[in-house]
Amino acid sequence: MLRRFFPKNFDFYDFFDKEMVYVEDASRLFKEIAARGEVSVENREKMREIEHNGDKMAYAIIDNLNKTFITPFDREDIHSLAKKLDDVNDILNTIVSRMKIYKMKKPNKYLVEFSEIIEKSIEALGIAVRGLRDTKKMNIVINACKEVSRYESAGDKLRDTALGELIEKEKDPIEFIKWKEIGQEAETVLDICKVVAHTVETILVKQA
Amino acid sequence: MLRRFFPKNFDFYDFFDKEMVYVEDASRLFKEIAARGEVSVENREKMREIEHNGDKMAYAIIDNLNKTFITPFDREDIHSLAKKLDDVNDILNTIVSRMKIYKMKKPNKYLVEFSEIIEKSIEALGIAVRGLRDTKKMNIVINACKEVSRYESAGDKLRDTALGELIEKEKDPIEFIKWKEIGQEAETVLDICKVVAHTVETILVKQA
Amino acid sequence: MLRRFFPKNFDFYDFFDKEMVYVEDASRLFKEIAARGEVSVENREKMREIEHNGDKMAYAIIDNLNKTFITPFDREDIHSLAKKLDDVNDILNTIVSRMKIYKMKKPNKYLVEFSEIIEKSIEALGIAVRGLRDTKKMNIVINACKEVSRYESAGDKLRDTALGELIEKEKDPIEFIKWKEIGQEAETVLDICKVVAHTVETILVKQA
Repeated sequence: MLRRFFPKNFDFYDFFDKEMVYVEDASRLFKEIAARGEVSVENREKMREIEHNGDKMAYAIIDNLNKTFITPFDREDIHSLAKKLDDVNDILNTIVSRMKIYKMKKPNKYLVEFSEIIEKSIEALGIAVRGLRDTKKMNIVINACKEVSRYESAGDKLRDTALGELIEKEKDPIEFIKWKEIGQEAETVLDICKVVAHTVETILVKQA
Repeated sequence: MLRRFFPKNFDFYDFFDKEMVYVEDASRLFKEIAARGEVSVENREKMREIEHNGDKMAYAIIDNLNKTFITPFDREDIHSLAKKLDDVNDILNTIVSRMKIYKMKKPNKYLVEFSEIIEKSIEALGIAVRGLRDTKKMNIVINACKEVSRYESAGDKLRDTALGELIEKEKDPIEFIKWKEIGQEAETVLDICKVVAHTVETILVKQA
Repeated sequence: MLRRFFPKNFDFYDFFDKEMVYVEDASRLFKEIAARGEVSVENREKMREIEHNGDKMAYAIIDNLNKTFITPFDREDIHSLAKKLDDVNDILNTIVSRMKIYKMKKPNKYLVEFSEIIEKSIEALGIAVRGLRDTKKMNIVINACKEVSRYESAGDKLRDTALGELIEKEKDPIEFIKWKEIGQEAETVLDICKVVAHTVETILVKQA
């Protein structure tokens, strides 16, 4: 197998920053949609576009990884970081798609709360990902990663509370199925954020 | 850790070709089953056998990978290709198993359509996988991979249409659950095909 | 990227043994809970604690992997073994959490049977993982791995039987959803055990 010995001038940090912006855009739009409780045609389209742009950025990183001989940190960590950030956008896009198909019309207090935790988690993730290029910021990055981990625990608790109330109060089985699915996917967003944060920590540990 | 320095005469291309045949067999049988809408005892057994044979082929590739020092392309790509092709068979087998357990008796137009897209996607995948050994066929392989990606998008749309109709018309919650599950798994087949195609593209990029 | 050239004195085998003990604790507690059919506050807390301790052990292994230059076997296999053992605890903890949220009160014969197969599978896994440090025990390890694989097949059959009876007899859709979910997760425990066993086999093959 031949890899080019003279790396192209591909700035991985720069592309991660760009991918991160799409993840932040998605989380802000998701919060807005959750607050309204209904997915407008316009917002559906916006979310799809963000997801599509994030996807292109992730593929650009992975494709350049395969063409580049020297990388700023371990190849498998670059791959994982690009892929998992993309997974965040994918699942936010999926949730919005489901809300649309399921014709949801009213805000749900738990989904609103999830969307707020998700936005905060992704804010912390942005600090972590952007801090990677500056080893002097190591403490800031580590604290941001710990925050992401705390939001994941908060999400677990919120899902259990929401599921407990759903099982107690929702007697329409199809409504039960819809909300169970959406709640679980909202919690999964926070799980994926935690995986991203752990990848960032791994990169730091190896550079230490 | 010691790896044998004198590679056994294991032809990875040959084994991928063989694994691919089982995936193609599975997709054709799945199309037939979807068209009938019911799983006969004979077809259940046939699908199980295909899955079992594909499994053995995937394990043969992975086990030989661990024993072989020189490989035609990156080890992790060989592992991923063998594993993901096997995942295609696994999930087709799972869908058929569910249709049997759920005692499905009539064809469903969406499942028929899915089975046709799946067959086409796997045909394109066959072109991609078999083209790997001949670098002169690079353009053919790349076009086949793009086709697989288009079928995945078509599958996404089909699942959304099917789910929209299901939520609209299916008032029996248990029927709803059954068809929602089967539709999602049918769409997942196309997702996995896309992952296989991307692995093939990765191998090509690295060889370029 | 800089890795420390002088490995810290980190005994991976020792940590795998410790992680394994938590998996065994979880499986025994799970069997007890399944037999009672109800999750007491005390048992809920115990399971959470086991999961938490197992998690810390897995992170210790992965973090030390990133700091250590020389490892007893392939880095990716160490990572996979630590992560997948942790997944076993995670999913057992999830099942118990669901049983609590769903306010399950009575033992279910299939869940009892699952919990017994899970315990046996994890016993065999313990033999496999502990046998890794002693190449003279190779045959014992290989047999234990085969046993884990057989328990996985048994789990597949049990899930199909349980799902078939559920679809036949359970007319309350919300009860159907609950038990379908718990049955599938119980079967997934055995799938993950099989992945762990295959990782152990991979390590052996490479050392042969």
